[in-house]
Amino acid sequence: MFQGHAAIDRFPDDNRLVYGDGLFETLRVIGGIAPWWDAHWSRLARGARRLRLPLPDEGQAQDVARELFGDRTDGVLKLLLVRGGEGRGYAPDAEAAPLWRLSRHCLPARQASGLRVHWCQTPVAIQPMLAGLKHCNRLEQVLARAECAAAQADEGLMCDGEGAVIGATAGNVFALCGDAWCTPPVDRAGVAGVCRTQLLPLLGARDLHLSRDQIEAADAVFICNAVRGILPVTRLGTRTWPEPSPALGAARLLARAHPDMAFDLEPS
Amino acid sequence: MFQGHAAIDRFPDDNRLVYGDGLFETLRVIGGIAPWWDAHWSRLARGARRLRLPLPDEGQAQDVARELFGDRTDGVLKLLLVRGGEGRGYAPDAEAAPLWRLSRHCLPARQASGLRVHWCQTPVAIQPMLAGLKHCNRLEQVLARAECAAAQADEGLMCDGEGAVIGATAGNVFALCGDAWCTPPVDRAGVAGVCRTQLLPLLGARDLHLSRDQIEAADAVFICNAVRGILPVTRLGTRTWPEPSPALGAARLLARAHPDMAFDLEPS
Repeated sequence: MFQGHAAIDRFPDDNRLVYGDGLFETLRVIGGIAPWWDAHWSRLARGARRLRLPLPDEGQAQDVARELFGDRTDGVLKLLLVRGGEGRGYAPDAEAAPLWRLSRHCLPARQASGLRVHWCQTPVAIQPMLAGLKHCNRLEQVLARAECAAAQADEGLMCDGEGAVIGATAGNVFALCGDAWCTPPVDRAGVAGVCRTQLLPLLGARDLHLSRDQIEAADAVFICNAVRGILPVTRLGTRTWPEPSPALGAARLLARAHPDMAFDLEPS
Repeated sequence: MFQGHAAIDRFPDDNRLVYGDGLFETLRVIGGIAPWWDAHWSRLARGARRLRLPLPDEGQAQDVARELFGDRTDGVLKLLLVRGGEGRGYAPDAEAAPLWRLSRHCLPARQASGLRVHWCQTPVAIQPMLAGLKHCNRLEQVLARAECAAAQADEGLMCDGEGAVIGATAGNVFALCGDAWCTPPVDRAGVAGVCRTQLLPLLGARDLHLSRDQIEAADAVFICNAVRGILPVTRLGTRTWPEPSPALGAARLLARAHPDMAFDLEPS
């Protein structure tokens, strides 16, 4: 169910989402609190600088978030920030006030077992100007998710046109190569996930280009995002990994370092 | 002024434009008629197949267009087609009926002189899965247009990450190389412009990879789109071309072949 709230009643019909000209954040809320608010807001601010998009007032956004979660329960908070101005002509209006909206959604169902992951044919385009940002140009991910559904997979891994693995359709990927966790860099494509950012120092993980073969040869693989935490992969194409996955060790470390996030520790 | 009309009153607040998950067409209307309707509808249908997006009923769309231009005057008709379903999660809902909307806008002001064109720093990402389509993921063009404004240019030319020229922010580019008009292919990036498609056979033009140097060395350059027709370029970065441009010959050919489009023949 959609429950939305923003500084304005409704977005105008002719807004800049017709170009995907905006940014979004998807936050895990536990007991009415979004523990990683600051990390999400930092990424939003980085994206807004890159797109030259004015930021809303953070205090006002927090007030709206508190109102949406006045019942102090769990859920997902989605923040959408869209450039102001009309949607005819690409030229951005530097004077237009941005539109923003917060909405409340249910937490996704708990993952009952390790993820079955599909190698997506849809490539991620290399675009350093937009890499790392959680922007609203997501057709690649939409096409890749359609592939996952057709393959009856839970998620999909995407590569760039040169064969480098970039990440999942809705999360980052980590692979255990020898005794080190590695994850692809996000400076040419992909999203700088908030969970990824928390995990890099926590796991002493390395930011490293990884090929499809390297991922398949890894001792363990997981996908992570800020809403679901760490999700061990048990099948990727034809490759399988036994359970329990060493990824559960990483999940325990994350849960210990961030107890307020209440991530599920292992598949039920 | 925005005058919109569609099969539904308003798009729901939580629609798939949050991912730019749609297509659009921008048509020149003369005396209430859109002479290139069929070419636009064909491109829309190609895009819809690629994105697995159901098409609206063409007859119903034409009825709405006729209603919007009941006064039989000139203008711009914009068609927007958006995937149905909610905007949480990238997975497309194969069952959801698409949303669509037609809106009426003013024709842009007549270009008073040749175009001053900026070489954009923002690259166009190589993405064969989306190349050619007029889809709603247009952040690259938004960033490039902001560059043009800062450079006080009328338009901008964009290259891919490998240095191949792709096109203008809102149009295709043609260059006169020796005695042949050439235009970059649109199978890896760029939009298969409706005006470009009409011009290829009319000019006997070649579909050819062009570098920035080749464009600057050309005897003439023009930018074209379906709303404005052919726009001669007189300045590109530091390179200038004298007027009248040989592009006016191409414009005359286009006007003769398509008199119902009433394109302006030359700068006023």
